[in-house]
Amino acid sequence: METRDNTTDFAESVQAFIDGKTKPLGSLGAIEKVAAQLAAISGTLQPEIDTCELILLAADHGIAAAGVSAYPHQVTRQMVLNILQGGAASAVFARSSGVSLSVVDAGVKGGEINHPSLINRRLGDGTANAVVEAAMTVEQYERAIIHGQALGESAKSDVIAFGEMGIGNTASAALVSAKVLGSAVADLTGRGTGLDDAGLAKKRELLQQASVRTAPKLAAADALREYGGFEIAMMAGAMLGAAGTGRPIIVDGFICSAAALCARDLNATIEQHLIFAHVSAEQGHRQVLEAMNANVILDLQLRLGEGTGGLLAWPIIRAAAKMLSEMASFDDAGVSNRE
Amino acid sequence: METRDNTTDFAESVQAFIDGKTKPLGSLGAIEKVAAQLAAISGTLQPEIDTCELILLAADHGIAAAGVSAYPHQVTRQMVLNILQGGAASAVFARSSGVSLSVVDAGVKGGEINHPSLINRRLGDGTANAVVEAAMTVEQYERAIIHGQALGESAKSDVIAFGEMGIGNTASAALVSAKVLGSAVADLTGRGTGLDDAGLAKKRELLQQASVRTAPKLAAADALREYGGFEIAMMAGAMLGAAGTGRPIIVDGFICSAAALCARDLNATIEQHLIFAHVSAEQGHRQVLEAMNANVILDLQLRLGEGTGGLLAWPIIRAAAKMLSEMASFDDAGVSNRE
Repeated sequence: METRDNTTDFAESVQAFIDGKTKPLGSLGAIEKVAAQLAAISGTLQPEIDTCELILLAADHGIAAAGVSAYPHQVTRQMVLNILQGGAASAVFARSSGVSLSVVDAGVKGGEINHPSLINRRLGDGTANAVVEAAMTVEQYERAIIHGQALGESAKSDVIAFGEMGIGNTASAALVSAKVLGSAVADLTGRGTGLDDAGLAKKRELLQQASVRTAPKLAAADALREYGGFEIAMMAGAMLGAAGTGRPIIVDGFICSAAALCARDLNATIEQHLIFAHVSAEQGHRQVLEAMNANVILDLQLRLGEGTGGLLAWPIIRAAAKMLSEMASFDDAGVSNRE
Repeated sequence: METRDNTTDFAESVQAFIDGKTKPLGSLGAIEKVAAQLAAISGTLQPEIDTCELILLAADHGIAAAGVSAYPHQVTRQMVLNILQGGAASAVFARSSGVSLSVVDAGVKGGEINHPSLINRRLGDGTANAVVEAAMTVEQYERAIIHGQALGESAKSDVIAFGEMGIGNTASAALVSAKVLGSAVADLTGRGTGLDDAGLAKKRELLQQASVRTAPKLAAADALREYGGFEIAMMAGAMLGAAGTGRPIIVDGFICSAAALCARDLNATIEQHLIFAHVSAEQGHRQVLEAMNANVILDLQLRLGEGTGGLLAWPIIRAAAKMLSEMASFDDAGVSNRE
């Protein structure tokens, strides 16, 4: 009870601090909510929020071979190189937003990728096909969480954003989310990178087959092990690591939200650290966001992944922090308050 | 017809250029629309969009004395100083977003404001009370447009954003918009800086009185002259000036959208230059946006003004431009396209 009262007291101090700023009461809308969350995470009225790093995790999915994506699995590897070379959307937006970018190979198909700035945390050459068997072994899952935690803990920035690349990973995210929420996988199955109606019907059928292999509701650890992917499991671990160091986490779209859902299942205290960048156009994202009571910043109909929504939200999140630390109060500025 | 065909051809080239980028087709949603608009404005596939300036125009409104705001008119002057001193939301967000800030006194009550970086374009000591008489003279209106055009033309940045400060200016914006659209002023009348129910009822009554003084529909020039304010008229002129130099314009909330509506009425070719940053929580804004077929970037429930929505949208607009100029194509990056 005492903790709860302290938390309530602090939340009231934060609101009073925001209300004292030179602006009409409540007039910064969603920015005020983000600011209040940043204050709560840091436990201070004026958190230092200047730098952001995007941890982008890539891996391949055995389920892709079954035909759940509009693109071949080779694209994962090609896009990792494109990101590293600076030509992918994530690389472009990271430069534009002043975010540093760390690309992690969690298990891209085709063997090691040689690039000086790639972080190698390979758990295998893609996951197994989750339609017919568990996507990864217990040992692979445990390594994913451990490597992830270390990545989250060792990041240098004030805020840590997450992104992913992995052909087939909307299939994994749908299965994992459905199992953790105990809901029907069909409701969470969408067009991913752009399936047509026939492709979507096939994906639905395959995910249904994959789903009936296991119980309707699973703990996050089992859901991740059964359905993957390496990048989603490692991201869940990295979110735990980042939250453990007291930092805010920027959650991108459907796949990152599935990882956040798992991370919350593994450790409920992570919840207050999660800042949801955007609601994506991918079916299923809205349902996962609702399950997490998410306040969402952007709705730009994005469905690209790679952390692009988080990169676009970052300047807004930083501005919310600057509102706390740099904006004058009515008293400071000698501005008359309401009559 | 030929112009129209050329425009259509160019729009198709832009779409093909965007579709060739290494991302699933259409997966950048609203960013692709902004990018296409930036290309159309510049007439190039790779517009140079690096810098932004916020022109923030301030003035007082005679109608404020009648009681249409939760704050006294003195707040306009106090807030201009707060903006110049760097403590207002606009100043904080401008620093955070790397936007240069130009503050213009278009007619703040209480005489000249002495500050080295304030731009003095005073048209009077506030407008007259539009409930009972025209807000400004024909000569004041003409000076507003001329000064505004010069400000818009002489701005140095690639993109020009607009903001305003003026206690009572949601009343002016509601009246001006209603007259230009020929709609009922009551539908466009909102709580502004935070009126309670009684205050809102009084504001509605006063705006109704002000409205019946003139014909139900007016040309923008007459609407601005009758209902003000100095900052709205000068902003309309500045938008014309900015568009005349071929640059994109970032439109903030309700008041800036009223200015844009007037600018479009004065010169229809301005329309393609207008990028609408956000839909505000102020009643009336949505109706004005719909009348302009606006694609809106943000919905953060803002109702602060000062250009804050535009400042928060600027990094997203710049990212859209960088997508055009820096993102690799499938061919460049050797990435496989859809099967």
